[in-house]
Amino acid sequence: MRYFEDFPVGTTMRFGAYEVTAEEITEYANQYDPSVLVPGYPGGEGGKAVASGWHVCAMMMHMLCEGFVLKSAGLGAPGIDKLKWLSPVCAGHVLGMETEVMKARRSASRPGIGLVYLRHSIRDQSGEMKLVCENWVMLATREGSAA
Amino acid sequence: MRYFEDFPVGTTMRFGAYEVTAEEITEYANQYDPSVLVPGYPGGEGGKAVASGWHVCAMMMHMLCEGFVLKSAGLGAPGIDKLKWLSPVCAGHVLGMETEVMKARRSASRPGIGLVYLRHSIRDQSGEMKLVCENWVMLATREGSAA
Repeated sequence: MRYFEDFPVGTTMRFGAYEVTAEEITEYANQYDPSVLVPGYPGGEGGKAVASGWHVCAMMMHMLCEGFVLKSAGLGAPGIDKLKWLSPVCAGHVLGMETEVMKARRSASRPGIGLVYLRHSIRDQSGEMKLVCENWVMLATREGSAA
Repeated sequence: MRYFEDFPVGTTMRFGAYEVTAEEITEYANQYDPSVLVPGYPGGEGGKAVASGWHVCAMMMHMLCEGFVLKSAGLGAPGIDKLKWLSPVCAGHVLGMETEVMKARRSASRPGIGLVYLRHSIRDQSGEMKLVCENWVMLATREGSAA
């Protein structure tokens, strides 16, 4: 288990690979975001399946859980400070992501809790940038956890 | 079909209701965000199923598609400017949302396109605020569409 102290500023983690399929894109779209199925949706030229932006966030969370969240003393995230969808994610893309710790501080009001500000970026196998996202994540401190 | 001109500043739309079930929470969590299944996840006291924050965004998109996106000349959204998860969304909650147009402007560089800055808020049936989210959305203008 890793704690706040294990993620100093500058720490960079790499996760993936996430293979995007037409089946998964369609399933998500039908359930949550049918707008990507409308002919003429940006990136869907020639009938290509394009993933919902929120689906790409879900794929990001899958990679983050596997590589980071489930192995750390995470206490959740209050929200997202910035999120940009930079280019379409389509069937056949294999996504990888990089997460960097930009800031880190101990909570002033809640002892035993630290916060890290993370910058996540997702690229496909050709290196094209798909998404950037920044947010604060709460982690238990090692000393707080030992107390 | 509704265009940029149909969403002046101050326009308020209401969407819903979205009934949250334990089955759907678990299905999403298993596929994308198993962190909500870890015992002790905030809001999950007593074994209650808590939805992933990204799942709540997916539910929001579902409501937005039904009430707004699929009925408008939407051209997508470049990203999210602010997103806050304010309290846990659990099985049994019935979500409704309100979307308000905070700003509206025509694109300076791309004729025929307008941008609206939206503030989305989601509450459960008791009125408890669950999520707020703000972002720019692109819409075709009526005049651009007629051209």
